[in-house]
Amino acid sequence: MSTAFSPIPRVHLRTSLSPPHPSPRHFPFARIRASLQESGPSIAVVGVTGAVGQEFLRVLSDRDFPYRSIKMLASKRSAGRSISFQDKDYLIEELTGDSFDGVDVALFSAGGSISKAFGPVAASKGVMVVDNSSAFRMDDGVPLVIPEVNPEALEGLKVGKGKGAIIANPNCSTIICLMAATPLHRHATVKRMVVSTYQAASGAGAAAMEELELQTREVLEGKPPTCNIFKEQYAFNLFSHNAPVLPNGYNEEEMKMVKETRKIWNDSNVKVTATCIRVPVMRAHAESVNLQFQNPLDEDKAKEILKNAPGVVVIDDRAANHFPTPLEVSNKDDVAVGRIRRDVSQDGNYGLDIFVCGDQIRKGAALNAVQIAEMLL
Amino acid sequence: MSTAFSPIPRVHLRTSLSPPHPSPRHFPFARIRASLQESGPSIAVVGVTGAVGQEFLRVLSDRDFPYRSIKMLASKRSAGRSISFQDKDYLIEELTGDSFDGVDVALFSAGGSISKAFGPVAASKGVMVVDNSSAFRMDDGVPLVIPEVNPEALEGLKVGKGKGAIIANPNCSTIICLMAATPLHRHATVKRMVVSTYQAASGAGAAAMEELELQTREVLEGKPPTCNIFKEQYAFNLFSHNAPVLPNGYNEEEMKMVKETRKIWNDSNVKVTATCIRVPVMRAHAESVNLQFQNPLDEDKAKEILKNAPGVVVIDDRAANHFPTPLEVSNKDDVAVGRIRRDVSQDGNYGLDIFVCGDQIRKGAALNAVQIAEMLL
Repeated sequence: MSTAFSPIPRVHLRTSLSPPHPSPRHFPFARIRASLQESGPSIAVVGVTGAVGQEFLRVLSDRDFPYRSIKMLASKRSAGRSISFQDKDYLIEELTGDSFDGVDVALFSAGGSISKAFGPVAASKGVMVVDNSSAFRMDDGVPLVIPEVNPEALEGLKVGKGKGAIIANPNCSTIICLMAATPLHRHATVKRMVVSTYQAASGAGAAAMEELELQTREVLEGKPPTCNIFKEQYAFNLFSHNAPVLPNGYNEEEMKMVKETRKIWNDSNVKVTATCIRVPVMRAHAESVNLQFQNPLDEDKAKEILKNAPGVVVIDDRAANHFPTPLEVSNKDDVAVGRIRRDVSQDGNYGLDIFVCGDQIRKGAALNAVQIAEMLL
Repeated sequence: MSTAFSPIPRVHLRTSLSPPHPSPRHFPFARIRASLQESGPSIAVVGVTGAVGQEFLRVLSDRDFPYRSIKMLASKRSAGRSISFQDKDYLIEELTGDSFDGVDVALFSAGGSISKAFGPVAASKGVMVVDNSSAFRMDDGVPLVIPEVNPEALEGLKVGKGKGAIIANPNCSTIICLMAATPLHRHATVKRMVVSTYQAASGAGAAAMEELELQTREVLEGKPPTCNIFKEQYAFNLFSHNAPVLPNGYNEEEMKMVKETRKIWNDSNVKVTATCIRVPVMRAHAESVNLQFQNPLDEDKAKEILKNAPGVVVIDDRAANHFPTPLEVSNKDDVAVGRIRRDVSQDGNYGLDIFVCGDQIRKGAALNAVQIAEMLL
């Protein structure tokens, strides 16, 4: 049986009107990459059949990521099927402890328990593990990295030095928020941040996207919606993020934003609160972010800063009422920021409101991980 | 030609799994109403064919609103058609200056320009005008009223005293937010409020709801979506509220929240910022509200206060991850509040995060207006 490589086959092709980014912006590692092209690293993709796993392949291909060999790893259920990548067919192998022999870089996106079971095994064999799960994010000694934000956290880590490591990819909503908030933070120091998210189905995997599509068809036909992934009706509805709620009343998704921001900014004083909501959108998140600064920052300066920020695009046309939307950033690398305005609830120029959209599967997961891998080369 | 009375015919019946509220909670005016039952006021409904106009009729009926006679008023286009209400057929009449002769109470929901043109005419003829548009909301001398929040603003105004007046219904997002925030404000005094909205199609009228449904069908069939009401794709997408953007970068919808809150709370110091977003939901708004208080208020006390607040229902089951959703409040009178938790970004008990949902057409518009009319009897 053959699994064609087409990320989230039916769903996003229909619901996204934007074609994949025609010429993805490359990180400035072209020279390093060129020298490795012949003898590039041996890669393993763990969880290759999932939504993020398939996006890993697309991003590797789009960015001409150099590799000597690539292993497609998944659960026993998918093992034995074939997957096509860059005009070659690969057999999907079952993930085992032996999978990492001879591997240099492994991109993990198969859930926290798989990462916990196999991440340390791989690292102990000298593999650079870039892990998309939350398993190790808050561990001391595990860098939590957004390449545009805190590349310094990767200092001293290099593929091919014989020493493995685990590097964590932040949570999608943290990445998307901090891509926009960090350039402003660097200029005026964020004291407090209030975030409300509008999160897409893709964060819960390909099956959640399929359920949203199925439910929508059912509701339009007057049938009761199928609720397998989420217990609530998702079509034409929204609900508090499905992550478990902690004793303090925040759900895990929200506390990720609070804690990961502190670790990534290396600032234990920054105050963050978040309310995370799932909306019936396919693959890109939106976030309404209110910022309180230590130092003044007016909206014109903020726009200028954001326009010059790597990986960020400003969409802020007040006259045309044109601002970022999830659809517009779907399949795009850049995070889009708009609605940049002085917060009228704060005195002077010490506050801003912004609205951010980013592709959850791409910059929120696969792209960020591949960028980390590029920095390790 | 007959226009059957079925509010937003196809759409909400399919997308809302909740039946209309079985026994709407009545405001405590039963006795006053009983004495007026025989000689109740003469009512006019202006904009009766619109989404809110049709909901006016449903609410009047659900609440056994007393009336001696009822006039169905609309534009020339709809005039001459018949409408059925409480087992009687009524002819829709064209709205003119003479429409208000002999009328005691007029419920307006036909847009700001109609209100501006005909509201003062009606008031000058002794009519109590309850206006759902934004035309007069911020005018000095025009009460802006949520009956559960600031009934005192109606003092001295009564139907049948021969003196007309205009009373403004606040904007839907303001009503829904303040239904939850006010009881907490009364206890601990809100200093600052950061609101992000998740607004339904219904706020832009029945045609917008139909467009969302049509677009969704089109997108699922792989066709380009029809964009008549909104310039953006709405199906499986979201976008900044379509209200015009003002020079300060806020859109009108957001500034309504800022200004109306100050007027309703009679507190020019309260600081409010809002980001208003349209999401692909049919008829109920959701709002993520971050509150900063002058005085301490812990989350248990906040829950207790909200449980006892009129017109508010608390849905806050952390273990089951069950919180308010737009679907759950659709066609309901009460505003639902959940995700009530101490804000970890603020010291001590001086901050709370809450999530609020309310039916935009019902409590956000028609029900609130009818409640105002009840208070005027």
